[in-house]
Amino acid sequence: MISIFEEEINLIKEAIFHRPKNNFAYAYDANTLHIRLQAKKNDLTRVELIHGDPYRWAEGRMLSDKLPMVKAAADELYDYWFIAIEPENKRFVYQFEVSDDRETWVFGEMGFTADIEQNRFFRFPYLNAVDVFDAPAWVKDTVWYQIFPERFANGNPARKTNTNAVWGDVPGPDSFFGGDFEGILEHLDYLSDLGITGIYMTPIFEAPTNHKYDTIDYMKLDPQFGDEETFRKLVKACHDRGIRVMLDAVFNHAGYGFGPFQDVLKHGAASRYADWFHMLSYGNGEEAPRYETFAFTPYMPKLNTSHPEVKQYLLDVAKHWIEEFDIDGWRLDVANEVDHRFWREFRNAVRGVKDDVYMVAEIWNDAMPWLQGDQFDSVMNYPFGEAVIDFIAKDKIEATRFASLVTSHLQIYPENVSRVLFNLLGSHDTPRILTVCGEDLNKLKLAFLLLYTYPGSPCIYYGDEIGLTGDGDDFAYYRACMEWEPEKQNQELLAFVKRLIAIRKASPALTDNARMEFLKTDDAKGLVIYRRRSGNEEILVALNKGDQPVEFELPASWSGKSVVDLWTGQQAEQDKGPQSTSFKLDGKQFRILGLGIK
Amino acid sequence: MISIFEEEINLIKEAIFHRPKNNFAYAYDANTLHIRLQAKKNDLTRVELIHGDPYRWAEGRMLSDKLPMVKAAADELYDYWFIAIEPENKRFVYQFEVSDDRETWVFGEMGFTADIEQNRFFRFPYLNAVDVFDAPAWVKDTVWYQIFPERFANGNPARKTNTNAVWGDVPGPDSFFGGDFEGILEHLDYLSDLGITGIYMTPIFEAPTNHKYDTIDYMKLDPQFGDEETFRKLVKACHDRGIRVMLDAVFNHAGYGFGPFQDVLKHGAASRYADWFHMLSYGNGEEAPRYETFAFTPYMPKLNTSHPEVKQYLLDVAKHWIEEFDIDGWRLDVANEVDHRFWREFRNAVRGVKDDVYMVAEIWNDAMPWLQGDQFDSVMNYPFGEAVIDFIAKDKIEATRFASLVTSHLQIYPENVSRVLFNLLGSHDTPRILTVCGEDLNKLKLAFLLLYTYPGSPCIYYGDEIGLTGDGDDFAYYRACMEWEPEKQNQELLAFVKRLIAIRKASPALTDNARMEFLKTDDAKGLVIYRRRSGNEEILVALNKGDQPVEFELPASWSGKSVVDLWTGQQAEQDKGPQSTSFKLDGKQFRILGLGIK
Repeated sequence: MISIFEEEINLIKEAIFHRPKNNFAYAYDANTLHIRLQAKKNDLTRVELIHGDPYRWAEGRMLSDKLPMVKAAADELYDYWFIAIEPENKRFVYQFEVSDDRETWVFGEMGFTADIEQNRFFRFPYLNAVDVFDAPAWVKDTVWYQIFPERFANGNPARKTNTNAVWGDVPGPDSFFGGDFEGILEHLDYLSDLGITGIYMTPIFEAPTNHKYDTIDYMKLDPQFGDEETFRKLVKACHDRGIRVMLDAVFNHAGYGFGPFQDVLKHGAASRYADWFHMLSYGNGEEAPRYETFAFTPYMPKLNTSHPEVKQYLLDVAKHWIEEFDIDGWRLDVANEVDHRFWREFRNAVRGVKDDVYMVAEIWNDAMPWLQGDQFDSVMNYPFGEAVIDFIAKDKIEATRFASLVTSHLQIYPENVSRVLFNLLGSHDTPRILTVCGEDLNKLKLAFLLLYTYPGSPCIYYGDEIGLTGDGDDFAYYRACMEWEPEKQNQELLAFVKRLIAIRKASPALTDNARMEFLKTDDAKGLVIYRRRSGNEEILVALNKGDQPVEFELPASWSGKSVVDLWTGQQAEQDKGPQSTSFKLDGKQFRILGLGIK
Repeated sequence: MISIFEEEINLIKEAIFHRPKNNFAYAYDANTLHIRLQAKKNDLTRVELIHGDPYRWAEGRMLSDKLPMVKAAADELYDYWFIAIEPENKRFVYQFEVSDDRETWVFGEMGFTADIEQNRFFRFPYLNAVDVFDAPAWVKDTVWYQIFPERFANGNPARKTNTNAVWGDVPGPDSFFGGDFEGILEHLDYLSDLGITGIYMTPIFEAPTNHKYDTIDYMKLDPQFGDEETFRKLVKACHDRGIRVMLDAVFNHAGYGFGPFQDVLKHGAASRYADWFHMLSYGNGEEAPRYETFAFTPYMPKLNTSHPEVKQYLLDVAKHWIEEFDIDGWRLDVANEVDHRFWREFRNAVRGVKDDVYMVAEIWNDAMPWLQGDQFDSVMNYPFGEAVIDFIAKDKIEATRFASLVTSHLQIYPENVSRVLFNLLGSHDTPRILTVCGEDLNKLKLAFLLLYTYPGSPCIYYGDEIGLTGDGDDFAYYRACMEWEPEKQNQELLAFVKRLIAIRKASPALTDNARMEFLKTDDAKGLVIYRRRSGNEEILVALNKGDQPVEFELPASWSGKSVVDLWTGQQAEQDKGPQSTSFKLDGKQFRILGLGIK
């Protein structure tokens, strides 16, 4: 904004946004409403909530006085004003009084007016408990580990007939190294030692490829991985160690060899499964059948999930693996291309069997339409990973842009959603994070620091903790064999990740809520400082991405108090004596400092 | 915005808003996507859509060139840019290129960047037919009439035992005049003659009050209104005339006398219906039970619609009256306070019985969260009525503000939603529209003009067409007896409404879509001119609210063409000869002009 009369510029009404029943106004729990208002950055100086019960209003009386909102967050363009409130009768109507000290407006459903009488109240009609977003309570405290079963460990080489590659070789698109359930079972000690409390496995059902995203039979384990007895043993062994197990449901499409699809190829329109897919043409002797697929992949025919039989079949599948094997979660492949109706029924079916199953959708974009409490508990948080990568690994964005991106992303979801987002730096679908970091170990450490101190449910892709690498034009390269020889594992990195996980698990401030306060960003120095809080516990993370040492200050409220260095577990030593709040940070280093730590 | 360097003011990024899967990006039908972008009014000069298939993008290829968006509407603060598109593979990713001629930005999910590479695409992942909002096809062409059965007509006085007032007297809160189904049957000729094609009746199930919003038995007709045979005859008679029948479902709360509630009052926590309501305390000998209610109305205990038995009971009710009596619609009382889960099941249950039932919710506010295709087809459009009242009846707002308010309201919903909104100027819950108009017949006519030329499904409250009045501090006054003596009916008004309805029914441009183009508003003169279009048909409505004659111009594209005056059905006579496009309009008058009318 260029103007020589800045003091005369009006309040920017056009930047003010609010709409109930999404990230701007939502039930945090059955009694608590969260209300947010977006405004142009640094524009408003005061926002107050004029509020009441809709039926008392009708009688011309207010429930109570105006309530001040606080500026809870800011990104590059906007400030986000916030208030949490417990409506007396679960019903709530409100307008905002916004001011920039020069002018004051009432903002309601009819826009901006001089008073509430000329406007219409925003309304959160009733806090129905059954509509409240209710991800399982265990999720926010869970530390995940993603396993690509073909590549994690081969525990029973003798059993396999399809192995065509030697463990540790560079994988090709069609390599089979022989990973199996026995291999995972053998290494549960390793995972427990690392601190893992949840395993997410990519698909394990019968399928011809090594990735198994082209299912032939959803009710059958792929024989390479092992039999039902072994899988049951695996789940049981995980549970005995406090590790949850999440499987991958590929319901957007089946594999080419899926029985019903083969039947359609054979019998065409006469097949009893004719409507199970999205056939564009059943073909004839001369012309091949045409059908919708995942992406442009002919061996992955898209399922017609609105067909009652398909629906019933897939819901039976979803229930079966919970009922029979007691799994704890479903990751939903290409979830955003399947209809919403299917997912609502899926949720009811799954929750009907086990009431704390975690449902994580593969959605790379803004997923608010799927996270309203009626469909998923969470999505794979690629946008978080991308921001970390652009900032730390690729040096593509500066500290301020990074803080802005993740703040915006936290604001597009309710806090109870952000608290359980499935955060990741990479997966079977992305280049290895160490490779993305240019094999710079310091960068990778800072990326992990962000992963484990960020709100959500963090997941590490198998082997990233010991320095697996891989990049290139084929997904195969992202799916290298896990390295089990200790001398070939990066033990320093492994210890680093283990320490971070331990810190996270010991710190409610890192897991209890989705608030992320950026206290400082310095683009020139590459410095980011943020705070997490819960109850009396405060944790401050200072991250120096630059090469030069920097000095930073603790919040004034920390002055004179005992500060713990969470990395060492010892009392932190201030740089200028115990009363100082000044800390020094070498290049490429970080600090995790705590106050009120039990 | 005050600045002496206006040419240096930047593009206002903060005013630009877009988010998929609501009014900003939605499936208009199974093949067509509508995309809208909000920007500060008069800020952008060009918006283009950079778009592709998500999986071709992954291969670095674009599906096609950028597409220009058009400025389709504007209100006081914003311009709304629009494009309709049919994605080749039902999948769609896009970013916007926005420009004000001085600077150009790419706007995507990560905000504003210099190019698409630094951003993330917005995504409409897949156009699933089953998720498309699908209000019944008949609704947009339906002309509704709301009947309050107790007050419409008493066709069988001898049958009643509860009548305590003489037809035509001023109603009190507890008056019973004896209206019944026989009365409605007797007057179907009247409704057909008026042009009505849909009747909405407020509740007809057993209840002690005259309004019957305190149901005792949802499976039983209130005996005052008549028996099942008569009601069946009524529905059949309506259908024979091409009139649809919509009933009122009061599922948020029951009446005090509802059997299960009485059981709870009697047996307390031991009642088998103990969980059917929201009991705060079951009470004891000394203390009365406490429970949640509609508003603060003790005789309307709120139902626990998340309880499986309650749900089953109410869904059975909803299906019963369709299955047994073939009704065509349900109006859902206090729908916004009932849980979303209930309504999703309600929709499935009702549509399972009859696939073109219309579901209209009583929601006075922005109802986007209920109009996503999974819950309701429509809501009672009070905001439209309020805008008309404030502009026409109360002279509270000027022409420009009126146009702005209704434009904003059309923009908060998808076009396929706005096309079927249940538009009304009043109901049993509001003062009579003629009274609101200060009994100024000219005002009322202009209000009706707006009602019947506006996108949506218009409804008139019984008697408004013949000039019933009523206002005051009790709802009773809004529910006066229908006047059946012709000499006491305002015949001029009746003929006026009848003519408007006939024009609407003959004009696809008024019903086919939700586009409302304001060509001109003049606050000083009180002039509003808007256009509706469909195919080759164009209708222009000019409304002069002021006392003085005004002159207005037809769109240039109409020049030299044959213009029909839809009111007279004759060719319109331009004021300055046949080649002129100039029309004169006296004070308090209007014109409805048509081009390409068949």
